[in-house]
Amino acid sequence: QSNVQIYGVVDVGYTRYSSSDTSALKSRNALDSGLQSGSRIGFRGTEDLGNGLKASFVLEYGIGVDTGAGLTGPARQSFLALSNSYGTVAAGRQYTPQYGLVSKLDPFGAGTTGDVTYGRGVYGMGAAAVPTTIRLNNLVAYVSPNFSGFNVIAGYTADGLGDEDNTAKGAKSADAKIWAINPNYSNGPLFVGLNYHQVKIDAAGYKDRVWDLGASYDFGVVKLAGVYGQIKNDNVGVVLLGAPGGDNSKAKQWMVGATVPVGAAGNVLVSYSRNKIDSDFAAADGAKASKWALGYTHSLSKRTNLYAVYSKISTNTEAEGSFSVKGGAAIGGGADDYTSGLNLGIRHQF
Amino acid sequence: QSNVQIYGVVDVGYTRYSSSDTSALKSRNALDSGLQSGSRIGFRGTEDLGNGLKASFVLEYGIGVDTGAGLTGPARQSFLALSNSYGTVAAGRQYTPQYGLVSKLDPFGAGTTGDVTYGRGVYGMGAAAVPTTIRLNNLVAYVSPNFSGFNVIAGYTADGLGDEDNTAKGAKSADAKIWAINPNYSNGPLFVGLNYHQVKIDAAGYKDRVWDLGASYDFGVVKLAGVYGQIKNDNVGVVLLGAPGGDNSKAKQWMVGATVPVGAAGNVLVSYSRNKIDSDFAAADGAKASKWALGYTHSLSKRTNLYAVYSKISTNTEAEGSFSVKGGAAIGGGADDYTSGLNLGIRHQF
Amino acid sequence: QSNVQIYGVVDVGYTRYSSSDTSALKSRNALDSGLQSGSRIGFRGTEDLGNGLKASFVLEYGIGVDTGAGLTGPARQSFLALSNSYGTVAAGRQYTPQYGLVSKLDPFGAGTTGDVTYGRGVYGMGAAAVPTTIRLNNLVAYVSPNFSGFNVIAGYTADGLGDEDNTAKGAKSADAKIWAINPNYSNGPLFVGLNYHQVKIDAAGYKDRVWDLGASYDFGVVKLAGVYGQIKNDNVGVVLLGAPGGDNSKAKQWMVGATVPVGAAGNVLVSYSRNKIDSDFAAADGAKASKWALGYTHSLSKRTNLYAVYSKISTNTEAEGSFSVKGGAAIGGGADDYTSGLNLGIRHQF
Repeated sequence: QSNVQIYGVVDVGYTRYSSSDTSALKSRNALDSGLQSGSRIGFRGTEDLGNGLKASFVLEYGIGVDTGAGLTGPARQSFLALSNSYGTVAAGRQYTPQYGLVSKLDPFGAGTTGDVTYGRGVYGMGAAAVPTTIRLNNLVAYVSPNFSGFNVIAGYTADGLGDEDNTAKGAKSADAKIWAINPNYSNGPLFVGLNYHQVKIDAAGYKDRVWDLGASYDFGVVKLAGVYGQIKNDNVGVVLLGAPGGDNSKAKQWMVGATVPVGAAGNVLVSYSRNKIDSDFAAADGAKASKWALGYTHSLSKRTNLYAVYSKISTNTEAEGSFSVKGGAAIGGGADDYTSGLNLGIRHQF
Repeated sequence: QSNVQIYGVVDVGYTRYSSSDTSALKSRNALDSGLQSGSRIGFRGTEDLGNGLKASFVLEYGIGVDTGAGLTGPARQSFLALSNSYGTVAAGRQYTPQYGLVSKLDPFGAGTTGDVTYGRGVYGMGAAAVPTTIRLNNLVAYVSPNFSGFNVIAGYTADGLGDEDNTAKGAKSADAKIWAINPNYSNGPLFVGLNYHQVKIDAAGYKDRVWDLGASYDFGVVKLAGVYGQIKNDNVGVVLLGAPGGDNSKAKQWMVGATVPVGAAGNVLVSYSRNKIDSDFAAADGAKASKWALGYTHSLSKRTNLYAVYSKISTNTEAEGSFSVKGGAAIGGGADDYTSGLNLGIRHQF
Repeated sequence: QSNVQIYGVVDVGYTRYSSSDTSALKSRNALDSGLQSGSRIGFRGTEDLGNGLKASFVLEYGIGVDTGAGLTGPARQSFLALSNSYGTVAAGRQYTPQYGLVSKLDPFGAGTTGDVTYGRGVYGMGAAAVPTTIRLNNLVAYVSPNFSGFNVIAGYTADGLGDEDNTAKGAKSADAKIWAINPNYSNGPLFVGLNYHQVKIDAAGYKDRVWDLGASYDFGVVKLAGVYGQIKNDNVGVVLLGAPGGDNSKAKQWMVGATVPVGAAGNVLVSYSRNKIDSDFAAADGAKASKWALGYTHSLSKRTNLYAVYSKISTNTEAEGSFSVKGGAAIGGGADDYTSGLNLGIRHQF
């Protein structure tokens, strides 16, 4: 009991998602789970090993409050860490540094339909064929101590998307080998961060290189934030257009956003983001998408808050059906092809 | 730690199920889990938000003690609630008001092979094609405060059985839209409750209307209880006969039961229940089933008790193979076609 | 909160597995979970029922730290127990007495690639067609009190591998009926234990008889341990050679091992084990495998330790591809056909 703490989020709300005129879908009105923050149950603990050394763990499982989905995994996070004055080394399933950076800059914290990241937004989380990848399996990460506001996160995984294969002699590995580096600088109201990562899947001839540079400044009456990034495939790959296939391509993407405190408990959130794809793959070449989002959060307590968010994605013909404000299993395949969204809900943290 | 409480049930026992002469099955002797109360692990918590407002949650997952089935969901319950002096609003996966009413009146509490509800009994839990539905997804429920012994529960879900669909333009929704209302009155030894609910699945042309009226009176030496109800399909549907198909039908069902305290720790339980189907669907028309059950529970402590229950279902030819004392995935399909059952077990609550 | 304790293991490390020259596989370098002890989350509790009677439960689910596998089950353990001065009766999913005995004698505690038991080792856990079975469903077990160092564990299950079937009249049961007995004797530095168990699957004409006799003696500067056992199929069955099929066979297997304390926090572990198969089934007849393992564990605290283990399996042609140092789903089928292994990792218990 003293060695483990249970925590979690129960987040549930009303959603209305509407599609563009060209979409095949009607509007959808529903009760959904995990809008602002994924509903979850987590277990964590820390042990002091002496000599300044500390062991800690996080085991966190997403759940579905609306339909009762259980603790089946894959975990949101599951890792063991060792820390001392030289930094922290953590091994297991963890967030990508890219997601850490982008979600920190996004006024919506990559939550609600205002989310800037691909799935509900247009800013791709470029990790191999799945641009919604925000967590990596088998990741060994290093987080440096803070040196006068400066710190670095670095990571490597021998298979970020699955489990390391048993590869036959003479065959190429189908593992997604990924390394990433993420230097950050904080100084009072200023934050600047850079992400660079690279994905390689030998068997698929796949190579992905991604970078993102972002900053925020808190003026007190308003906090401004921005991020710009590129995803580049060297050979085969997919950049932000769901269906897999051969594709030499580059995505350029950016977001600007603002957070405005209103009274003691409120925050107005606003963001605008864009994505443009330049590709050898005819259907994707020249695809453009933009999104704006407006929201309000209101704290009922430190642990519980209400939220109201509206967002809208616009695309040109080439990008039609590849972006969604809803999120879901079949993003880009048309099954979740909603272009405007409303979320009204409540998030309770325990 | 202070924000969440873990609780649960570990219930395991010996079962012997026997079939009628016409059944294809031998008797089954087994160690089974969750006989009196489904074995489970739950997490719950409450937060005082000030001004008389309170947030609370329940996340509860069924498990199988005998075979080790894990916390996969769908949850037994998973919801977030807000309460104040005007009542409680809860959203998520919750019990149906019908189940709340019927299980409260059943001397066996809808537990053990003595269970009156369909699955192990003959009293159908009429929610769409699946008459064993006792929980609804995506439910928003309101529970009124108690006014001089009177309270009301009301609920609505846009899809009680799955997750709200993404419906194509021009198509009808396959969601099971359900609303329910359940007024109750308690006064000392007397309890009276009514349930009315309606199920609609547009794509299937399905419409189901269900009502139940029940009461109990505690004389001290014996508590008597009874409930009468009807399930009515307007068009297409299935009432208590497993296989889906076109079926304009009505089920009339009732139960009478008694609970007799024996000594400080014991209770003798007895019930008799019947179900009769009147249907356009030839095979089901005139189907009749009845069940009696006799049981004894003995408390070893406030949290732990023993139980022994015997039950027997009788049917006419039309209802043969559609009711079972065992429960299970394939009720009505013959795979769990057992007509008498014995449960001897122990239930531990933590 | 007071009724349930959460506990678990987070174990993660680097593995390098290499195959023999004849294997189809390259070496595998990976981050893996649960090397020394399976990573897990468990819930347990005890209730005093008065008169010396006690109820207790264990619900324990394996997880995958590297890939985030969740609490899906089958549970590592899930049972309810009643204890008094006459012993303990426990019902549910539990370890086999054979595994309890062999893992106690194995210097590696059946953990890491040094594990003596089949899956990662050559010592078969003979329970029906699956010689890696170390836990049984639906088991009712009795553990006697300790009489001057002597105790007995006995168990029976009507289906140790699945859930008890609904068997059709005229058909034979496909359930794996298993009973086991395991007397043990401890006296200061000496431990002696015997296991005998029998597996019957009527529908398959399968009958398996297994016995193991082992002992250990702790000299202080070194603890020596050894175990010898046999698995015998009467008719149809499989003994330690993955693929199912007709097979009258006997496996003779043994292990010797030593544990040497080094300083206050360290232990050097070493073991050598062999298995030899005598079978009517031509491909398996005369199959021989041996394994040696060398390891070191170092405690950082009572709850956290490091480990480094190397192991190597050698086989003759008949046993080629049927044993693996890695473990995994497809043992014996070649998919995990690694013959030498290195584990470097950390285990944290909470």
